Amino acid sequence: MTIFYRDGIVSEQAIAPFDFTDRGLLLGDGVFDTALVLGGRVFRIEAHLDRLFDAARALDIGVAHDEVRRCVATLAARGGRGVLRTNVTRGPGPRGLRPPSTRQPTIFASLAPLSDNVAFASLTLDVAKIRRNESSPTSRFKTLNYLDGVMATAAVAEAGFDEALFLNCSGRVASTATGNLFVTCGGRIVTPPLAEGVLPGIIRAFILAECGGQERPLELAELFSADAVFVTNSVRLVAPVTRIGDTLLASTTDDRVKASRHRLWTAVCDECGISLPLPDGIDGAETIA
Amino acid sequence: MTIFYRDGIVSEQAIAPFDFTDRGLLLGDGVFDTALVLGGRVFRIEAHLDRLFDAARALDIGVAHDEVRRCVATLAARGGRGVLRTNVTRGPGPRGLRPPSTRQPTIFASLAPLSDNVAFASLTLDVAKIRRNESSPTSRFKTLNYLDGVMATAAVAEAGFDEALFLNCSGRVASTATGNLFVTCGGRIVTPPLAEGVLPGIIRAFILAECGGQERPLELAELFSADAVFVTNSVRLVAPVTRIGDTLLASTTDDRVKASRHRLWTAVCDECGISLPLPDGIDGAETIA
Repeated sequence: MTIFYRDGIVSEQAIAPFDFTDRGLLLGDGVFDTALVLGGRVFRIEAHLDRLFDAARALDIGVAHDEVRRCVATLAARGGRGVLRTNVTRGPGPRGLRPPSTRQPTIFASLAPLSDNVAFASLTLDVAKIRRNESSPTSRFKTLNYLDGVMATAAVAEAGFDEALFLNCSGRVASTATGNLFVTCGGRIVTPPLAEGVLPGIIRAFILAECGGQERPLELAELFSADAVFVTNSVRLVAPVTRIGDTLLASTTDDRVKASRHRLWTAVCDECGISLPLPDGIDGAETIA
Repeated sequence: MTIFYRDGIVSEQAIAPFDFTDRGLLLGDGVFDTALVLGGRVFRIEAHLDRLFDAARALDIGVAHDEVRRCVATLAARGGRGVLRTNVTRGPGPRGLRPPSTRQPTIFASLAPLSDNVAFASLTLDVAKIRRNESSPTSRFKTLNYLDGVMATAAVAEAGFDEALFLNCSGRVASTATGNLFVTCGGRIVTPPLAEGVLPGIIRAFILAECGGQERPLELAELFSADAVFVTNSVRLVAPVTRIGDTLLASTTDDRVKASRHRLWTAVCDECGISLPLPDGIDGAETIA
C-alpha cells in the first residue's frame, strides 16, 4: 500500500486538502526525486537530496532543506522498503507565469510498494518521435514536466516496447523516458554528457564513479553496434537492453553489465544494511522484488 | 476575487480535496484553456472548447465534453467578467509514465479577475535562451508543462522585459511564452505555421481568418526589420511589441495593428453582448480593464 506525507502527516489516504492555485499543478512549476528504500534506508540519500536541492535552487524555489529531510526520513522509516517520491513545487500563486515574490513551496511525498521483477530486469526500447530538448531545464532537472515521456512511452508501448529512447534536438542520443543510457563497447562503458539533455541520475553517477564509466556524446548508430546497452535509474538499477527497434542486442550476457550490476547490488546491500542474494538472473527472473 | 469550480461545486475557496496521485500534478499529464469572459459570455467559446477537446484527444484523455461545458457555463455565468482557466488532467494513477487503462479525468476551473490595463497593452520582449521544442506535443497543445515559459519569463523579467520570445530548435521564430507572434511587413500580416512549434491560439485564428493574416516560417532578423510586431492571446488580445532586446519597434502606430485591434474589439463586443468604447490608446493607457 502506498503511504503519503503532507504537512508533517503520514497517511494512507491519497486524497487530502490542496491549494488549486498551486503552480506545481497549473504550470508544472516544481521538481521531484525518486529513490529506492530498502531496510528503512534510502540508497544514496545524500546524493538524492543534493540533486533535489540543486534542482530547486536552479528554479529559485526557496525550500527549507530540513523540512524535506524530515519528510524523507519519516517515510523511509515507516515503509521499510519501496519507491520514495519526494516533490517540491513553487507553491500557490496568482495568475501568470512570473514566479511570485513570496515563497511558499509545497512539499509532499509518497512511498509506493516496489513492483515485482523491476530491478535489473531487461528492457526493450524504441526510438521516440519526440526529441529531448537539451536547451530546456526540464531535460537537466527532474521537474514535473513529464508529458513528453508520457506520450513517448504510450506510443512505444502500443508498438510492443517497454521504454522510449530519446534523441536530443541535435539528433544525438540523450536518454530513455525514465533512465540514463549506457553503452559498452571495446571494454568501455560510455554515457552521454549532461549537456546532451540528460538528467544527472544517481545510478548514472554510481556507474561513472565506481564502474569506470565515461562521458561522451553518442550517435544512435553506436547503440546498434555496441556490445551492450543498458538503462539506469533508481528503481530499475541496471537494466540491460535486449532490443532497440528491430535490432537485437546481447546486453544480458555482457561482462561489463554483469560486473556493474554486481558492484551496484553490493553497494545497495551495504548501504541499506540488508543481506539479500545478488539477483543472478540478469534476464530479471530473480530480482529483489 | 477568484472563484473555483470542482466536482460540480463553485466556491471561493482555493483549498479543496485533491488526489495526490493525480497525474496532472505528478507528471504534467493534462491540458488547459484560458479564455476571456465579458458580459457573462466566453469570447469564441466554441473555438476554445474545440481546442481543449482536441488537446485532450491528442493525449488520449477521455473527457466527458458535457461536463467541461457545464463547468465553463457555470463559471462564466457566475463571474460576469474575468479570465477563465479550464483544466483537464488524466486523473489519478499508479506509479509510472504509462497511462492507466481506466480513465478518470479530473476537471477543474477558475475565474480570476481581469488585471488592469492588460488587454491591448504594449509589451517588450527579449529572446529566451531556452528553445521551443517543435517535436514535442507541449509546443502544439496547451498542456500543464509550462516550466520553460516560467523560467524564460523569470529570466527576461530580471533583465527588465515583459515577455520571453522563443525560437524553436531549428532556430526560427516560434512564439512568446504566453502568446502567438505576428509581424506586419509591406502591408502583410505574417505568423509562423503551427509546425514551427506554436499553439493554435484562438486570437491567432481570428487574425488569420478576419484580418488577412498569413502563415509562413519567420527568421528572427525579420522581426527586427518588420514594420510592426505584435503578440496575441486571449487576455492580451493584440499587444504591440515596442522593443525586442535592444531594438525599438514602432508597432503601436502601425495601421495593420490598429485595424486588427479595432476588428477584434468589435467582434468581442458583438459576441459578448457588451458595449464598451474601443480602447483607443494603443499604448495601453485606455483598456477594457
